[in-house]
Amino acid sequence: MAGRATRTPRRGVTAVVPFDAARFDRLMAEYGMDAVLATTRHNARYLTGGYFHHFVARTGRSGHGQYLSIVGVRRDLSGAFHVGGGDEGALIERFGGLWIGERLQTVRGQGMTVGSALQAAAALGRRGLGSGTIGVELAFLPADAFDVLRRELPSATFADASPLLGELRAVKGPQELDLLRRSHRITGEAIHAAMAGAAAGETTRGLAEAVERQMGARGGVFLYCLACVGPGMVRAPGPERWERGHPLHLDAGCEVGDYVSDVCRMGSIGPVPAEARAMYEACIEASLRLRARLGPGLTCGEVLRLGRGFARATRWGEDAGFTAHGMGMVSHEPPQVTSTPDRPLEAGMVLSLETEIRRAGVGHVKFEDSVAITPGGCDGLGDEGREWCAVAG
Amino acid sequence: MAGRATRTPRRGVTAVVPFDAARFDRLMAEYGMDAVLATTRHNARYLTGGYFHHFVARTGRSGHGQYLSIVGVRRDLSGAFHVGGGDEGALIERFGGLWIGERLQTVRGQGMTVGSALQAAAALGRRGLGSGTIGVELAFLPADAFDVLRRELPSATFADASPLLGELRAVKGPQELDLLRRSHRITGEAIHAAMAGAAAGETTRGLAEAVERQMGARGGVFLYCLACVGPGMVRAPGPERWERGHPLHLDAGCEVGDYVSDVCRMGSIGPVPAEARAMYEACIEASLRLRARLGPGLTCGEVLRLGRGFARATRWGEDAGFTAHGMGMVSHEPPQVTSTPDRPLEAGMVLSLETEIRRAGVGHVKFEDSVAITPGGCDGLGDEGREWCAVAG
Repeated sequence: MAGRATRTPRRGVTAVVPFDAARFDRLMAEYGMDAVLATTRHNARYLTGGYFHHFVARTGRSGHGQYLSIVGVRRDLSGAFHVGGGDEGALIERFGGLWIGERLQTVRGQGMTVGSALQAAAALGRRGLGSGTIGVELAFLPADAFDVLRRELPSATFADASPLLGELRAVKGPQELDLLRRSHRITGEAIHAAMAGAAAGETTRGLAEAVERQMGARGGVFLYCLACVGPGMVRAPGPERWERGHPLHLDAGCEVGDYVSDVCRMGSIGPVPAEARAMYEACIEASLRLRARLGPGLTCGEVLRLGRGFARATRWGEDAGFTAHGMGMVSHEPPQVTSTPDRPLEAGMVLSLETEIRRAGVGHVKFEDSVAITPGGCDGLGDEGREWCAVAG
Repeated sequence: MAGRATRTPRRGVTAVVPFDAARFDRLMAEYGMDAVLATTRHNARYLTGGYFHHFVARTGRSGHGQYLSIVGVRRDLSGAFHVGGGDEGALIERFGGLWIGERLQTVRGQGMTVGSALQAAAALGRRGLGSGTIGVELAFLPADAFDVLRRELPSATFADASPLLGELRAVKGPQELDLLRRSHRITGEAIHAAMAGAAAGETTRGLAEAVERQMGARGGVFLYCLACVGPGMVRAPGPERWERGHPLHLDAGCEVGDYVSDVCRMGSIGPVPAEARAMYEACIEASLRLRARLGPGLTCGEVLRLGRGFARATRWGEDAGFTAHGMGMVSHEPPQVTSTPDRPLEAGMVLSLETEIRRAGVGHVKFEDSVAITPGGCDGLGDEGREWCAVAG
């Protein structure tokens, strides 16, 4: 996925590691970890280069438990393993195989969370990592699986691997940027199609459902849709009706191959409210002024300072705001702009830029989409359809 | 949801508990639990009567962690509490409020999994449950949240609440049956539409994607689609092509308001393969013979014995198989037919009935849909479009 392929031996053949091996090695040293166990769908896909069991990719819940696969990777990439279901061998072959050398099946006869943890613990033990430092996704790993790991490896130290995995993903390769471009384009198009297809009086709940259908028709998996009809400020889909002459914002996200989007666009039915439109144009202009300054080396703190400055330089002053956050397989992934002001941007990072103005009597006007940092500046992801959506009616 | 509303006092008003309070009380006694903490989306919705934060309902992942809400319910239903995000008050009001008396906000400044567990632990402590037996969803609860609960309540005993919650859900009320009917109908229609819209040479991956789009267009949330082109036996979507004269089965599921479906239908392009069609008709007939015998009091073991007998009475004998499993918010929920042979069916239980015949040279023919047990027998859920789908071409 990350585009910087590294070759590693596997059973006498040469397999391509789908992430940046040098970055992984550096991060493992920095975080003091001997191995990581990825258990979330997105990190399992990241470390395998895209593989996850199709049958359980949308929900793993079944019976009293859930599906759990585990991808284990050591710092030097040797002896990587995958623990999955009994039927996954054929699926992995069909995927084209994995760079990961050992494929293990969950231990049957108990919940899969427990059975997979038992196999992962045994695999770590066989690799001499019984007293090592093992990174796990603490905010996701099921409680019973963690108890098994600690019971089976009583001398091991367990630490949270989520920050390390987030850092590993922070710089995107070309294939990842293509997926982010696709998820953002789908979202922009779906928002416009939902607005264009609505009649006066449609509820914000109905509009959010239309966004979901429009995303699905384009191959995106709906995640959420915030909806706000001015002059109201409530941003949740609900019973509010979108009437003629009222500004509407839809702020929505979908995923394509686990890569998520975050896009906000404005529209109205019938006469376009003049001040809301001017506010939206000011948001777009502020965002474009910031884009002209983005590039490698600019710090996150500077991004916020510039973005806020351009927003507040509009005639809505303190009613205007700006923020930014990293985007990829996870929204708000590194670079986590607000909490790391000294961090410089790097080519391949992706930022969501949010510029918004709240004005009593008008409503909440917001413009948001994402950019990829390039060696010479930045590229917009999904810039299509950012103009005000004026619907006849 | 369960239709048997119970009244419980809340701040001087009377609120309706959306599940069967007497059944809950009996199960809590049987499992020896003083309180349960629900942390999955489906069980949170079940216990609240349908509420879950819309923004994170499809994915909670954000930054280095994920969203976590906790619904805490004591055996006598007094002092129930909900731990959620800072912005959930308005959403809960919009939902119409909850029967649950206390709404708590996650502790900020750390991951929400930790912050919500801190609040839940404090709430249990205030209720004198610090040394009680607390049910948690062990195969789902995030590891860091469980560690917080154990650290904050060192004298408490923690046990797995998933079997209890599964039992609580086992008997469905009218609203739940409506949602299951909807998810099954959508799935049957989506399978037929995907087949009818395909051209010869379409891949099973393309067919699965079409099922996803067709479900989305009908308001269902796609979960999975197994696809198998005869005479092949591989059931995963992939590069296999559906050519004229080959039987195809699509075995798919979606969810509507967390209620899941499981439906398998057959089709072919051009000339209908005669033996495959006869096999499918035999599967349907075997399933209907079983339906005629279903009703309250029949044991799960009898369901399997009868279903297998009717399948093997077809002229494909030992090549024919049958199984059944409970359906609801979770596939394979109670009644877990194969593991509880002595358990009698009750009105309101829902079973998926799977009848299939595998024959070398023909393929894997399968018929599956669900029935709700009624006082007098059973009702089909989503029986529409179960005839062979013959596509011109």
